[in-house]
Amino acid sequence: MNLILTNARLVTMEPGLKGYLPGSPCCLVIRGGYIEAVFDNEQEIAQLTNNVGPDFTLLDCEGHIVTPGFIDPHTHLIFAGSRAEEFEARLNGETYEAIANRGGGINSTVQATRSASVDELVELALPRLDSLIRSGCTTVEVKSGYGLTLQDEVKMLVAAKSLENHRRVTITTTLLAAHAVPPEYQGNADAYIDYVADVIIPHVAQHQLADAVDVFCESIGFNLVQTEKVFSAAKAHGLAIKGHTEQLTNLGGSALAARYKALSVDHIEYLDNEGVLALSKSGTVATLLPGAFYYLRETQQPPIELLRELGVPMALGSDLNPGTSPFAHLQLMMNMACTLFRLTPEEALRGVTCHAAQAIGRSETLGQIIPGYQADLAIWDMSHPSELSYQFGMKGLKHRVYAGRVEHVI
Amino acid sequence: MNLILTNARLVTMEPGLKGYLPGSPCCLVIRGGYIEAVFDNEQEIAQLTNNVGPDFTLLDCEGHIVTPGFIDPHTHLIFAGSRAEEFEARLNGETYEAIANRGGGINSTVQATRSASVDELVELALPRLDSLIRSGCTTVEVKSGYGLTLQDEVKMLVAAKSLENHRRVTITTTLLAAHAVPPEYQGNADAYIDYVADVIIPHVAQHQLADAVDVFCESIGFNLVQTEKVFSAAKAHGLAIKGHTEQLTNLGGSALAARYKALSVDHIEYLDNEGVLALSKSGTVATLLPGAFYYLRETQQPPIELLRELGVPMALGSDLNPGTSPFAHLQLMMNMACTLFRLTPEEALRGVTCHAAQAIGRSETLGQIIPGYQADLAIWDMSHPSELSYQFGMKGLKHRVYAGRVEHVI
Ligand SMILES: [Zn+2]
Ligand SMILES: [Zn+2]
Repeated sequence: MNLILTNARLVTMEPGLKGYLPGSPCCLVIRGGYIEAVFDNEQEIAQLTNNVGPDFTLLDCEGHIVTPGFIDPHTHLIFAGSRAEEFEARLNGETYEAIANRGGGINSTVQATRSASVDELVELALPRLDSLIRSGCTTVEVKSGYGLTLQDEVKMLVAAKSLENHRRVTITTTLLAAHAVPPEYQGNADAYIDYVADVIIPHVAQHQLADAVDVFCESIGFNLVQTEKVFSAAKAHGLAIKGHTEQLTNLGGSALAARYKALSVDHIEYLDNEGVLALSKSGTVATLLPGAFYYLRETQQPPIELLRELGVPMALGSDLNPGTSPFAHLQLMMNMACTLFRLTPEEALRGVTCHAAQAIGRSETLGQIIPGYQADLAIWDMSHPSELSYQFGMKGLKHRVYAGRVEHVI
Repeated sequence: MNLILTNARLVTMEPGLKGYLPGSPCCLVIRGGYIEAVFDNEQEIAQLTNNVGPDFTLLDCEGHIVTPGFIDPHTHLIFAGSRAEEFEARLNGETYEAIANRGGGINSTVQATRSASVDELVELALPRLDSLIRSGCTTVEVKSGYGLTLQDEVKMLVAAKSLENHRRVTITTTLLAAHAVPPEYQGNADAYIDYVADVIIPHVAQHQLADAVDVFCESIGFNLVQTEKVFSAAKAHGLAIKGHTEQLTNLGGSALAARYKALSVDHIEYLDNEGVLALSKSGTVATLLPGAFYYLRETQQPPIELLRELGVPMALGSDLNPGTSPFAHLQLMMNMACTLFRLTPEEALRGVTCHAAQAIGRSETLGQIIPGYQADLAIWDMSHPSELSYQFGMKGLKHRVYAGRVEHVI
């Protein structure tokens, strides 16, 4: 946890172009898992590396670029069952309705997840997490939402958090009990929302099982009144707020979330000008999820230009889930954000670092390379950060540093 | 090269559904790098594994699925220079023309490739090849086309073929001198085509440097007359024929290629009914390249339904190149083919195995798991081949077998 990087060309992600363009090779000093200092003066570096104590590890970055470790601010990493068969059935012409009628769709994931133990959920999640780690992640947000009972939602949150015992990674957890109406409450969504607000949220808050609460606010999800009920309960119990909003229609969920000072609103393809304005006033992050846009072959673009103009921070997540975004790779999301949404490579990189940190409420300690921040870093076999968004599969992560500990990847 | 796989659930890629659905666990015997026999009778298997000689390696596939090694039938793997800066400039609003005027676009790749040595080209290509190998490839087709002089085209073909000395992989080479009009012939495309037909093709054929000849037949490439001149020279010198056709417009290049009994026509988004009919009669493979379709944000779909109806074999390639498809991953292409073109997972898998073998003229020895074929195999941590197309990054290749030699991947 005491580490000195030499020949590191830092992409610090501080505000402004300076934070994006790689600096000249320098020395980064890490102590106790945190960034202590940056030296770019040759004499200082020589003195430092000649006098490094035995409790320091030295890593030569060979002039490669060093970015903050990536943060995936939106995943549904914990689930059981596979939807590959359903993917194939749809491509062979079976309708969505027919699949749902034989127990497919999200219900099949809920069924399988309810039947799985914490250990089984962890076992299934690890290969997905490993893929995110290989794509540069050091922090992953994980949502519940396939349990839909107190017991099963808690099980998912516990499984998610326990991933930290298996890999060097920070996990933040989000309660998404309001993901879908469970079979037991079919036709009675209001009663389910009462259960979420009055039973699940208080329990989860009391036992500190989640960092935030999220709602699927959508024509095929929960309406504005139901969404507000959940937000209000979250606020009353001191939990941060996030929203799945404006993905398929414009219900006004983002503006509602902004009124509750949400950390982020996610998807937002159908967000209108008023909604963007509301975000810009509340400091809420707009989290883009191009994997789901691609997978569902959507055509409605999120309002990138206005978000950019009004300075709304844009984060970027995998939305990793079995039904609409079975992709465990943040660099692929960066390419999709640039290709499909026309983000610039700088915006894409901020989306998985400093802005992603803001989207999960960790912007004070994660997502930038500055003194005092946790030493989570990714060292890439590249000379310019634009390559991260441009290409896929050609080059990759060379080393990953989590809280000052080095893992060699290639 | 003498190997016995046990507990292998074979996806043989023989014609018919039998070739796609994984069989029950069986034993595959490989001798001298070739598939010798398959045993699924328990007694035979027991006898076989008890009496295996010391010259045989045993590999337990643990019930995982085993497919033929993947074949990427269309790449531009050999090139120097990066186009990441150009990708970024375009997203920051610079026009295509402005970039071309300052020496960007394909000319920058030609310039950099001409300046590179064979060794440098190989060094640059290896990480790309490694990524394709990690995605399951055992065979990769590689085109020239960034040299555009006899010397530089030959250099590219030599670099491509020499990749076989660095990795366990089969490389087939395609001369694509008719990729673009080089700067020296600007405004004089006919004279360049004469040079290709009269000088480059005879030399390449005489020295056996390429398996096939390809042309970029397009409104922004070469016209039909020029294309036929190249095809005719290729035929005269005994080389197989391929075409970049109907990508952006419908010039009739595919029908022309079919008249020349081309191995494949590639891209074909704008192919019309007559063109499909011509392919179905000539036995030419339709090679789909969804990476370029995605990267260029095209909307015109290739005529999948008619190709399917008339039984035209569909192959699937990465089109790996710096300008329009910087993607070195065949599983990503399978997902894109299903998501964007609505191929079924079975079609996608045939596209990178048996049909890809046909597209490169190797259907007699590669792309299926049947006795007599080269033992190129991919062993996947999956239970059903639909997972290969459905998800990305979550699970992957466990072992790769090239000509009977095992490489462990995970
Ligand atoms: Zn989501
Ligand atoms: Zn091509």
